Amino acid sequence: MCRWLAYYGSPVRLEELLYRPAHSLIDQSLHARLGVETTNGDGFGVGWYDDRDTPAVFHSVEPAWNDRNLRELAGHVSSPLVFAHIRASTGTAIQQTNCHPFRHGRWLWMHNGSIAQFPTVKRDLSLAVDPALYPSIEGSTDSELFFYLALTLGLEDDPPVAVARAVGVIEAVGRSHGVENPIQMTVATSDGNSVWAFRYSSEGRSRSLFFSTAIETLRALHPELELLQQLSVEARLIVSEPLGDLEGAWNEVPESTYGVVKPGEDEMHPFRPEPPS
Amino acid sequence: MCRWLAYYGSPVRLEELLYRPAHSLIDQSLHARLGVETTNGDGFGVGWYDDRDTPAVFHSVEPAWNDRNLRELAGHVSSPLVFAHIRASTGTAIQQTNCHPFRHGRWLWMHNGSIAQFPTVKRDLSLAVDPALYPSIEGSTDSELFFYLALTLGLEDDPPVAVARAVGVIEAVGRSHGVENPIQMTVATSDGNSVWAFRYSSEGRSRSLFFSTAIETLRALHPELELLQQLSVEARLIVSEPLGDLEGAWNEVPESTYGVVKPGEDEMHPFRPEPPS
Amino acid sequence: MCRWLAYYGSPVRLEELLYRPAHSLIDQSLHARLGVETTNGDGFGVGWYDDRDTPAVFHSVEPAWNDRNLRELAGHVSSPLVFAHIRASTGTAIQQTNCHPFRHGRWLWMHNGSIAQFPTVKRDLSLAVDPALYPSIEGSTDSELFFYLALTLGLEDDPPVAVARAVGVIEAVGRSHGVENPIQMTVATSDGNSVWAFRYSSEGRSRSLFFSTAIETLRALHPELELLQQLSVEARLIVSEPLGDLEGAWNEVPESTYGVVKPGEDEMHPFRPEPPS
Amino acid sequence: MCRWLAYYGSPVRLEELLYRPAHSLIDQSLHARLGVETTNGDGFGVGWYDDRDTPAVFHSVEPAWNDRNLRELAGHVSSPLVFAHIRASTGTAIQQTNCHPFRHGRWLWMHNGSIAQFPTVKRDLSLAVDPALYPSIEGSTDSELFFYLALTLGLEDDPPVAVARAVGVIEAVGRSHGVENPIQMTVATSDGNSVWAFRYSSEGRSRSLFFSTAIETLRALHPELELLQQLSVEARLIVSEPLGDLEGAWNEVPESTYGVVKPGEDEMHPFRPEPPS
Repeated sequence: MCRWLAYYGSPVRLEELLYRPAHSLIDQSLHARLGVETTNGDGFGVGWYDDRDTPAVFHSVEPAWNDRNLRELAGHVSSPLVFAHIRASTGTAIQQTNCHPFRHGRWLWMHNGSIAQFPTVKRDLSLAVDPALYPSIEGSTDSELFFYLALTLGLEDDPPVAVARAVGVIEAVGRSHGVENPIQMTVATSDGNSVWAFRYSSEGRSRSLFFSTAIETLRALHPELELLQQLSVEARLIVSEPLGDLEGAWNEVPESTYGVVKPGEDEMHPFRPEPPS
Repeated sequence: MCRWLAYYGSPVRLEELLYRPAHSLIDQSLHARLGVETTNGDGFGVGWYDDRDTPAVFHSVEPAWNDRNLRELAGHVSSPLVFAHIRASTGTAIQQTNCHPFRHGRWLWMHNGSIAQFPTVKRDLSLAVDPALYPSIEGSTDSELFFYLALTLGLEDDPPVAVARAVGVIEAVGRSHGVENPIQMTVATSDGNSVWAFRYSSEGRSRSLFFSTAIETLRALHPELELLQQLSVEARLIVSEPLGDLEGAWNEVPESTYGVVKPGEDEMHPFRPEPPS
Repeated sequence: MCRWLAYYGSPVRLEELLYRPAHSLIDQSLHARLGVETTNGDGFGVGWYDDRDTPAVFHSVEPAWNDRNLRELAGHVSSPLVFAHIRASTGTAIQQTNCHPFRHGRWLWMHNGSIAQFPTVKRDLSLAVDPALYPSIEGSTDSELFFYLALTLGLEDDPPVAVARAVGVIEAVGRSHGVENPIQMTVATSDGNSVWAFRYSSEGRSRSLFFSTAIETLRALHPELELLQQLSVEARLIVSEPLGDLEGAWNEVPESTYGVVKPGEDEMHPFRPEPPS
Repeated sequence: MCRWLAYYGSPVRLEELLYRPAHSLIDQSLHARLGVETTNGDGFGVGWYDDRDTPAVFHSVEPAWNDRNLRELAGHVSSPLVFAHIRASTGTAIQQTNCHPFRHGRWLWMHNGSIAQFPTVKRDLSLAVDPALYPSIEGSTDSELFFYLALTLGLEDDPPVAVARAVGVIEAVGRSHGVENPIQMTVATSDGNSVWAFRYSSEGRSRSLFFSTAIETLRALHPELELLQQLSVEARLIVSEPLGDLEGAWNEVPESTYGVVKPGEDEMHPFRPEPPS
């Protein structure tokens, strides 16, 4: 169980996203409300895009709330596209290579949820990864393996299709091992131009996921957040848990749905896993 | 705000103290009930006595609940006198030198609470430390400085008197700086033969502290803890928060009181700070 | 490139092995002489057997020379069978799950050297691991995967045969990928009763390995090591680099050889990889 | 013993300074040539100025050569004024609060060398720090205390005078405790507009310090460093050890000298401690 945040819009300093909101992601690392676990202290990660070819990532095994380097970075780095993730391990080791967001080339990936009975299905899922990609897997989490499955199945060409196929493989492999509900997920991925966010679970009771619909609404609802006044009207936040309590600020993403945040109109579509043929 | 545990009795493996009880110290690191903070994830420490001249200490800046080395040690180290502490920082850095228990020669010391407005009074309190002891201060916490004040004022000769004097100095210095309630404390200290535990606060509303009165009582109340069957009848636990929910297992130490656990009869006495002359 | 030490004999305190000798393993972490790399600062590990069913392991990503917890443990833990390893990464991440010695049940394993072009051969070698063992792999190193290959191929029944088979698989897989010299290795493994140590490389120019032949010799040559006076005459050290400079104290293990240290007479035999059938 | 680097000039990406040169600072962390210690693996730090009021600092207790976050940052952060420091502890703990550069407001400070017999003189030197500044001391090193002495004695108004006074105090206190040669130092400090660098030792045999005189010279001598072609002609590097072997690229700062790198003409002057009156 983890918490995450994706931001897309005018460049903002990371601290505006991570520390300023009343119920910020850093605050959620100590006191999450909607999650299965209330403490998300098993490491964290931040990824951001700038003018370089690949995004930067910063991973730490310390709890986010007491990491001094995160506070420094957050005060000095600005970016128009930011991923942040706080981790509550579901069993795998606390180490930087297990921290989200994961990166491959220009792509970032982060996940809340889990692949059920992961030790049982890990080998079969690893075999389904493209042998050319296999050596790039650095950690031991279900989330990173899920990312490499999606990369294997076309993430860089068509993210919704690739994720649907990857979930299809995970469900097929899980069920072949007798796992009833093979996957729980909210996932965010990006190539630096768009952000795709998915909400799905085999049992149909998925982890929470929220979109901020329009910056005008947010400005009205969070007058305490000065930065909102300066943001472009296209700015969007996608979060696993709302950053504040005001009514109407956040819209829950429906079950089995994915959204795309990109230049121009945002989109939201049904998400259906695609079983392997 | 922290949580701590002191054990005195027949040798037990550390895991019996730290991991087995229903509401163990490790569990409290994620979900404390009686503390100001519910998460105690800012490092931890364990100290234990064996046949060597000085006790061993193990300090880590990771949360106790996910530290693999602690789990290993706890499964392989046995001791008749154990201190364990989980930390929730009140502002000072998360680093091994700020982890309890602190050690000086044969003495261990751990503290829950704080010296109010510590940045304001730190210099004056540091000046009150014996210049010969001053270079041994390694960290930056109020708790370690409190320990060195007590050492300066005779801890090795008469712990209750030395702690009364140290608290007297802290209250006098605090009040000279306009601090209304200069100290909040439960403290445990040991020389390897006895354990002294103190509950006190300037405002008279101190952090919680509990003694287990008699092993027979505990045996009856915690039949799930096999180790209790093997313990000597003198075995005692002193804890900042009960390790289980059963009625009658734990006795709260009254306000402004200290206790001594030692071979023979235990003692409990009123605690009054001794103002500096 | 790493350095390691295995001790078998009367129980000794770890500090006698790790810190006391003139050119101790801790000293080698800063200034190795015989290795490819002079600094071994990418983490370390210690494993030891006691009266429990499984050995203890302590892993750290800090350099061994400045780890305060290692110094504490070394001063308080005694054992008749100790493995210690300091790491210089050949590319994989610095994290506890990549620190030697690795453990599976009662077995410990540590390795100096590398599997050549590991990213290229990693997937094929992973497939050769018993599916039932596969989920237990926690890290990302060649050394741990080598351990699981040996476990798959019978380590718990006949270590020399299992290691010969594992090396056979590694060489066959490597050569199928065009790798000229697939493996470089000194390896130590134990079940708590005996220690097996192997020296081999595909190119026939293996990492150094030394046995101390007889405690009487050592006593004569290291009079500064008080502990030698107290050791049983069966005590043995196996090291990747001598712990001191005295002539005659150490005997180099020949190329393509393995030794067994056990109760009774020690043994040394030729080592030949066994190609897969 | 440590190694450090200060850069002043057109904005450069940190990786150009830290990783690209043939004998880069990161390489020096494994293999320093001119230092007392060849390994500088006891943590590191980087500080840089940008458009914010205070400079950023990034501190880590891991060896610089294997820190993944440093590599990420170095590839994404650019700055016109950079301090970088790799540490070899002279005894104090390895923790972030002991990592250079130290920061106070807009000022950065880093130091190679040591205050002799620091435990003996630490208390007296601490007393010489302005009580209003005292609570800001976070770590336990001689270097940070030296910084706060300089701040107490006017660093923000006149750095050369303040450092001369601080060294005067350190020498007076040291000699009052019978210390023959109280200080060894190369120091760099900055307010974001200029860099001051000092080379001095009580014994007159100071740690090495080098200035790069003119960018045109560097361009000619380091054609492999593409970035040199893009730098302003005012760009300067000040280093404790040359970053390459080419003759003529580096000019040793004479004994008992300080230099100022700033907009316009650089300066170099004799440095003489100013004894306390």
